[in-house]
Amino acid sequence: MLSQTVEYALRAMVCLAQAPDALTPTPALASKTKVPPNYLAKVLQVLAQAELIQGRRGVGGGYKLSRPADEISMLDVVNAIDRLSPITTCPLEIAEHGGSLCSLHRRLDEAVRMLIERFEGVSLADLISEANPSAPLCESRPTVSIRVSGSNPS
Amino acid sequence: MLSQTVEYALRAMVCLAQAPDALTPTPALASKTKVPPNYLAKVLQVLAQAELIQGRRGVGGGYKLSRPADEISMLDVVNAIDRLSPITTCPLEIAEHGGSLCSLHRRLDEAVRMLIERFEGVSLADLISEANPSAPLCESRPTVSIRVSGSNPS
Repeated sequence: MLSQTVEYALRAMVCLAQAPDALTPTPALASKTKVPPNYLAKVLQVLAQAELIQGRRGVGGGYKLSRPADEISMLDVVNAIDRLSPITTCPLEIAEHGGSLCSLHRRLDEAVRMLIERFEGVSLADLISEANPSAPLCESRPTVSIRVSGSNPS
Repeated sequence: MLSQTVEYALRAMVCLAQAPDALTPTPALASKTKVPPNYLAKVLQVLAQAELIQGRRGVGGGYKLSRPADEISMLDVVNAIDRLSPITTCPLEIAEHGGSLCSLHRRLDEAVRMLIERFEGVSLADLISEANPSAPLCESRPTVSIRVSGSNPS
């Protein structure tokens, strides 16, 4: 219902929000977000088409947010992948219903509007600044094992 | 976000709830719900596997609900197609997060739980009994044009 692709896109956007001034290469982003690289590359293309991120190819290339993190909502990201659309007229095009939804479509419409309202009110900046013991949304640095040998390196 | 397949499944279930004692053949159900017949056939198979409906093949065959409409919730139908699962542990399996979700996954989890709560509380019986000017969720009978000729048929 909240698709895997939407969740991957949100992971990527949050990681880019955490490094707003740098171009993050796709392999680094894949590693940090734990999204399969080929899958992530397609997600990033869609996000770029939606003008939420911008990329530069070649050496030193990568992606960064197109605008500040406080100007991109969760809804912007969700809509780029899988648009949340309120139901305004009968999907069966039953003429007698007119603009009045039946019980089923009214319930579905309410659910969609509730999701829109929730996601609209949360920016990427909100997500990365929230006081939370699990602050990082993605692993920001690889885990490094440090072996201390007995010999003195100096 | 609320997938087309979920919406089609709900249409079909509501139509079956409107005729609880009869076996409705797939072509009739396709016509009433305006769902492409081949697509609907696959949706019905999934609903049957989830034991929400039961079918009989052959002449006079079709589908009917497996249990009364007041014992089948919208959530049962949604879950049969595309399960709504709360997020209980970090999807990135970041060990340091433990059972504590980060800001992103907490928001997504809240949205999923809200949908679960909404859909759990509405049965098919609620949908078909709701006082609503647009009562039928699907066209329950074909539109018939009656031409009255000048001659007296009696």
